[in-house]
Amino acid sequence: MTKPVSVETERQPPSPRDGDPASRPRYRSISYRLKRFVLGKALDTAAVADERIRKRVALAVFSSDPISSTAYATEEMLLVLVLAGTAATQLALPISLAIVGLLGILILSYRQIIATYSSSGGAYVVTKDNFGGLAAQIAGAALVIDYVLTVAVSVSAGTAALISAFQGLSWLRVPIATGFVLLLAWGNLRGLKEAGRAFAVPTYLYVVSIGVLVALGVWRWLSGDLGPIQYSAEDAETLAGAGAAVVPVSLFLILHGFSSGTTALTGVEAISNGVSAFRTPQARNAQRTLVAMGLIMGTLFIGVTFLATRFHALPFPDGNPTLLAQIARHVLGPGFGFLVVQVSTLFILVLAANTSFSSFPLLANFAAGDAILPKQLRKRGHRLVYSNGILVLTLAAMVLVLGFRADVHGLIPLYAIGVVTSFTLAQASMARYHLTHREPHWHRGLAINGTGAVVTAVVLVVIVITKFADGAWMVVIAIPAIVFLLRRIQDVYEREEDQLEVEAAVSLPPPKPRHEVMVLVDDLDRASLEALQYGRQLNPLNLTAVHFAVDPDEARELADRWSRINVPIPLEVLACPDRNLLACVQEAVAERQRNDTEVTVLVSKRGYGRFWTRILHDRTSAGLVRLLGSMEGVNVTIVPYQLGHTPLVEATRTRPGRDPTGDGGPD
Amino acid sequence: MTKPVSVETERQPPSPRDGDPASRPRYRSISYRLKRFVLGKALDTAAVADERIRKRVALAVFSSDPISSTAYATEEMLLVLVLAGTAATQLALPISLAIVGLLGILILSYRQIIATYSSSGGAYVVTKDNFGGLAAQIAGAALVIDYVLTVAVSVSAGTAALISAFQGLSWLRVPIATGFVLLLAWGNLRGLKEAGRAFAVPTYLYVVSIGVLVALGVWRWLSGDLGPIQYSAEDAETLAGAGAAVVPVSLFLILHGFSSGTTALTGVEAISNGVSAFRTPQARNAQRTLVAMGLIMGTLFIGVTFLATRFHALPFPDGNPTLLAQIARHVLGPGFGFLVVQVSTLFILVLAANTSFSSFPLLANFAAGDAILPKQLRKRGHRLVYSNGILVLTLAAMVLVLGFRADVHGLIPLYAIGVVTSFTLAQASMARYHLTHREPHWHRGLAINGTGAVVTAVVLVVIVITKFADGAWMVVIAIPAIVFLLRRIQDVYEREEDQLEVEAAVSLPPPKPRHEVMVLVDDLDRASLEALQYGRQLNPLNLTAVHFAVDPDEARELADRWSRINVPIPLEVLACPDRNLLACVQEAVAERQRNDTEVTVLVSKRGYGRFWTRILHDRTSAGLVRLLGSMEGVNVTIVPYQLGHTPLVEATRTRPGRDPTGDGGPD
Repeated sequence: MTKPVSVETERQPPSPRDGDPASRPRYRSISYRLKRFVLGKALDTAAVADERIRKRVALAVFSSDPISSTAYATEEMLLVLVLAGTAATQLALPISLAIVGLLGILILSYRQIIATYSSSGGAYVVTKDNFGGLAAQIAGAALVIDYVLTVAVSVSAGTAALISAFQGLSWLRVPIATGFVLLLAWGNLRGLKEAGRAFAVPTYLYVVSIGVLVALGVWRWLSGDLGPIQYSAEDAETLAGAGAAVVPVSLFLILHGFSSGTTALTGVEAISNGVSAFRTPQARNAQRTLVAMGLIMGTLFIGVTFLATRFHALPFPDGNPTLLAQIARHVLGPGFGFLVVQVSTLFILVLAANTSFSSFPLLANFAAGDAILPKQLRKRGHRLVYSNGILVLTLAAMVLVLGFRADVHGLIPLYAIGVVTSFTLAQASMARYHLTHREPHWHRGLAINGTGAVVTAVVLVVIVITKFADGAWMVVIAIPAIVFLLRRIQDVYEREEDQLEVEAAVSLPPPKPRHEVMVLVDDLDRASLEALQYGRQLNPLNLTAVHFAVDPDEARELADRWSRINVPIPLEVLACPDRNLLACVQEAVAERQRNDTEVTVLVSKRGYGRFWTRILHDRTSAGLVRLLGSMEGVNVTIVPYQLGHTPLVEATRTRPGRDPTGDGGPD
Repeated sequence: MTKPVSVETERQPPSPRDGDPASRPRYRSISYRLKRFVLGKALDTAAVADERIRKRVALAVFSSDPISSTAYATEEMLLVLVLAGTAATQLALPISLAIVGLLGILILSYRQIIATYSSSGGAYVVTKDNFGGLAAQIAGAALVIDYVLTVAVSVSAGTAALISAFQGLSWLRVPIATGFVLLLAWGNLRGLKEAGRAFAVPTYLYVVSIGVLVALGVWRWLSGDLGPIQYSAEDAETLAGAGAAVVPVSLFLILHGFSSGTTALTGVEAISNGVSAFRTPQARNAQRTLVAMGLIMGTLFIGVTFLATRFHALPFPDGNPTLLAQIARHVLGPGFGFLVVQVSTLFILVLAANTSFSSFPLLANFAAGDAILPKQLRKRGHRLVYSNGILVLTLAAMVLVLGFRADVHGLIPLYAIGVVTSFTLAQASMARYHLTHREPHWHRGLAINGTGAVVTAVVLVVIVITKFADGAWMVVIAIPAIVFLLRRIQDVYEREEDQLEVEAAVSLPPPKPRHEVMVLVDDLDRASLEALQYGRQLNPLNLTAVHFAVDPDEARELADRWSRINVPIPLEVLACPDRNLLACVQEAVAERQRNDTEVTVLVSKRGYGRFWTRILHDRTSAGLVRLLGSMEGVNVTIVPYQLGHTPLVEATRTRPGRDPTGDGGPD
C-alpha cells in the first residue's frame, strides 16, 4: 500500500508569480490587523525557547510573590487583633513568629518536592502523580482561585501603596487597579519575558529599601530616638472608633490573626513550579534559591511586624495610608526615602501579580491537556504565549477588582485558602511518594513532608473556621463547584473521543452508487451559473437547479427566463408557502436522502464589496450554510462569486444543431 | 434542447417514512419558535387577499389620521400666538379658517388625483410617474419622515390625552408612549387587519364625542350659561409666566401660528393611497369619502378653535392637561362625558399612528422595488406583512419618542414639512399630467391642481421659515440626506445587477480538465474519515488530506498514526509557523489554483451536542468556511459529522493482499 505522508517542517514563502492567485497578499482580517498593531508581529512557532536563568535573577523573579506579601500581611493581622483593642495588637509579634515557623516547615517540605520533581513540580502535577484525578482536580481548583486572587490582591495592595504616597489619587483607586491588570494582560499577551534582568530590579529594590527601613527603624528605636507614632486628632478619632475593644482577647481572635497573617505564605510554591528555568544543577540551585527567599521573607516580615508593634502603628479601616507607609514615613520622614519605599512596594506588588500571569496559563495548559479544561487553553497565540489562559485570568481578576472595589482588606479572607489547600495536597502527595517509592533517606523525607502535610491541614481548618463569615465561605463553595465543572468537562471530552475514535483497522467504504447535486438558485445571474458550472464539474448522477418560491411572482418570472436560456440543467421550482426558507430547503434535501445516495447542496455566495453594500442584502446564504452544514449526511458547498472580478462563465453564441455545453443534463 | 422546468404551486406535506430522514421534525430554530409564540402561526403566501371595504368603514379607517389631528392642532396654534400675550390667542379663529380653506383646496386637488390614479395614488407613485427619479425620491423621503412623525406625534398626543384624564400617570409619560408604539408594532407584525369593523369604532366615537362637545359648548356659550375658564391660582401663575407677551403681534407670528396649525392637514392624502381598498366604483366612492372627511374635520377643527377662543382657554407649556381636555372639562364637567372625550381621543390617536404602520411598509415595498431602499423591505414576513418595514418604522418612531420624551410640542416643528412637501410634489405632478395628457376637462384639472401646487409650495416656504429655528432645520437637513442615501443605494444595486446580469445567449463552458480536492484534517477521527470518504465520492484527479502543523508535536503524532491506518489517501503536513491557520490555508489553496483546475476544499464539521459542550471547542471550522467561501474560485464544502449518530464509516478487517477500499489513491 503506497501512502506518502509528507511533512513540511519549514515553510518557504511562495515565490510570487505574476497574475497568479498565489501572489495575492496574505490574508489579514481587520481583527488580525488590530491584533498585530496591539501585540506586534506574530512569532514563529520555532521560537519557543527554553530559557535558563541565573540564581540571582531567579530569586528575584520567583520570590516577588512571597516577598511582596510582607507589604500587607502585618497590616491584615493588626486589623484582626485591633478588634480586642489597641493593646491586643502587641500579639502580632508572637503570631508572626509562628507564621515564620510555618514558613520554615514549608521550605523544608518544598526542598523535598524540588528534589523529586525537578522539571515542573506544581501542586497539580505532584498530586496527580500520587493521588490521581480527583485530588489533582481539587489542587487545580485551589490553585486557579489562588492565582486569580494573587492578581487581585497584589494589584489592589500596589494601588494602596501608590495612593499612600499620592493622596490626590485616592478617588482613582479602582481605575488605577484595573489599569494595572490590563497593563499586565497586554504585556503578557505580547509575550513579556519575565526572565529578563529588568524583572530582578523591583524585587531587589524592595528588599533593600525595606531592609534599610527595618534596620534604621530598629536602630532609632533602640537608641530611644523614636517613640510611638503620633496620630493627628482626626486620625486618632478614626482609629479610636476602629480600635475600640469590641471582643475580648480569645484563642479564636489569635487564630484569626494568624489566619490573616498566613497570606504572607502565598507564592512560596512558585520556585517549585519553575525548576526547569534554573541553570544546572537545577534542583540544587532551586533549593538554594528557596532557602534564600525564606530567609529574606522571614526577616522582612518579622522586622515590619516588630516596628509596627514598637511604634504602636494602627491600621486604618480603609487602608489609607497603609501600615507600611505609616512606618516608613515615621522612620524616614515624608521625603525621598519614603517615596522610594512606596514606589518599590508598588513595583514588587505588580511584579507579584505578574507571576500569576506566567503561572496560570501554564497550569491551564496542563489541565487542558488532561481534558479537564477547554482545549482552547492549549493553543499558543500570536506571540507564542497561551493567550486564552491570559485572557481568562484577566477577566477573572477584573471581576474581583471591580467587585471588591480594589479593597485589599475585603479580598484577604478569600486568599490563602487556595494556597494552603494546595500546600496540604502537595505535601500529602510527597508523603505518599516516600511511602511508595522508598528512595534513599525516605524516612527523613516522610517525616518532613508528613509534618508539613499535617501542619498545613490544621492551618487550613483554622483559616476556614476563623475567616468563614468574612468571605472564606465563597472559596469553600467555589472549590467543589470548580471541581464539579472540571469533571463535567472531562466527561464531555471523553464521550466525544469515544465517538470519534478511529480503530487502526478502519477503512473507507466504496463510494455510494448515487450522487445527487442540488444547486440552490435564487435568481438567474452569473453567481448561480457559476454554481451550476461547478455542479457539472462534480459529474453527479443527478444535477438539478432548485428554486424555492418564497415570492410566487418572482418564481414564475425565473421559470420563464430559465426556459429561454441555453443551460441544459432542469429547474425545479418548489413551493415554500410559509416563507421559512431554511425549513423548506431542509425538507427538500431530506426527501432526496437515501442510504445509497450522497447528497450535495450547492449554495452560491455573492461576494459584495464593502460592508455598507453588504447590508443591502439579506444573509440567507450564511444561514443556509449553517443549517445544512449541521444536517447529517448533507454536504453543503459554497460556490463563491466575487462581484467585480472576471467571471468564469463565458457568454458564447449558440450555434444551431450543436449544444456547446456537452452533456450534464438530468438522467 | 430538453430542459424541463417544473413548477410546484402547492406543496404536499411529505409522507412520513419510518427511519427515513424525511420524517424528521421540521426545522424550527429557537428564534423561529419564539417568533411563532409571539406572532402566531405562519400564514400561507396564498392567503394574500385584496379586501374591499365599505365607504362607511373606509371613512373611519382612512380618516383617523387627519381627524385625530384636531386633538392637538388648536393647542399648537395657541402655543405660538400666546407669545404675544393672551389676547393674541383670539387670532386662532381666523387662522384656523385659513387652514380650513387650504384643506378645501387640497380636497379638490386630491379628488383629481383619485380620478386619475385609481389604483394607488400615493405622492411617491404620482411624482415618479410625472417627474421621474429625483422628484419621486424627494417625495419618498418626505413621506418617510412624515410617517415616522405621525407615529411619534400621535402616540405622544394620545398619551397626553390619557394623562389629562388620569394625572397620576404623568410620571409614566415616556413608558406609556413607548408601550403604544410597541403594541402597534406587535399588532401589525401579527398581520392586524386594519379593514376590520372594529377599527371604525374609535373614529366614530371621537367624531361623535367631539361633535357633542362642540355643539354643547356653543349652545352653553350662546345661552350665556358658561363664561371663560377660571384657572386656579397656581395654574394662573404658570400660565401668566408662559403667557407674558414677549413678542409683538406680527405677520411672522401669525404665519408661525398658521404653520403650527397646518399639522391638522397631515393624513389628508391617506384616502388617495388606499383607493384600491374601496368597493366599485372605487374612484367615485373614494372621492365622496374624501369630501365627507374634509367636512367633518373642518367642522371639528373650527369648532374646537371657536370654543378655545370663546372660553379663553390657554395651553399649558407642558401640555398637561391638554387644551382639548380643558375645554371638555369646562363644558362637560369632570364626570363621565369628560372621560369619554379623553378615551376616544386616545383611541383615535393610536389608530392614527396605526395608519402609518399600514402605509409605511407599503411605501417601503414600492421604493425597494425601485431599488432605492434595501431589498429586504420587499420580503413578506411570517404573517405576510412586510415585517422589515414595520420594524424600521418602529425603531425610528421609538428614537423620536424617546429623544423628545414623548413631548408633542417638541415634535410639532418637525411635522408638516414632510407632508406639505409631498402635497406640493403630488399636485405639481398632477398639473404636469394635465398638461401632457390633455384628457377631457384638463383645463379645470390644471387650474385646481396648479392652484393647489402653488398654494402648498407657498405654505411650505412659510412653514420652513417660521419653524426653522424650532426644529424644522432637522427635516431640512434630513430630506436631502435621505435622498442622497436613496440614490447611493440605487447606484449600488445597479452596479451589482450589471455585474451579475446573464445574457440570453449564455452557456456553461465545459468542466475544467482538472479537479483537485483538499481535505483539511485536524485530527485522525471519524469526522475526518467522513470527509475523506466524501472526497472520494467526488472522484477528483487529485485527492489529498492536508494538515497544518499549528502544533508541530501534534502534527508529528498525526503523521505517525496516519502511516499506520488503512486509508489510501496521502497526508500532506504543511507548516504554519505563525499559527494564523486561516492565512496558511489560504496560501495552500492559492498554490493549487490554476485556470485549468477547479479546487474544492473539504472541511469536516463536528456537530457537538448542547450549547455548553460547543463552547469547549474552538470555532475554527466556521471561520475557515467563511474565509474560503469568499475566495474567488475556491469551492468549500462542509462535510458534517454528528456526534452520537451512526457513523457512515465502517471498521472492516483488512485482508492481506486485498485493498477493500478500491482505488482512490493519488494519481
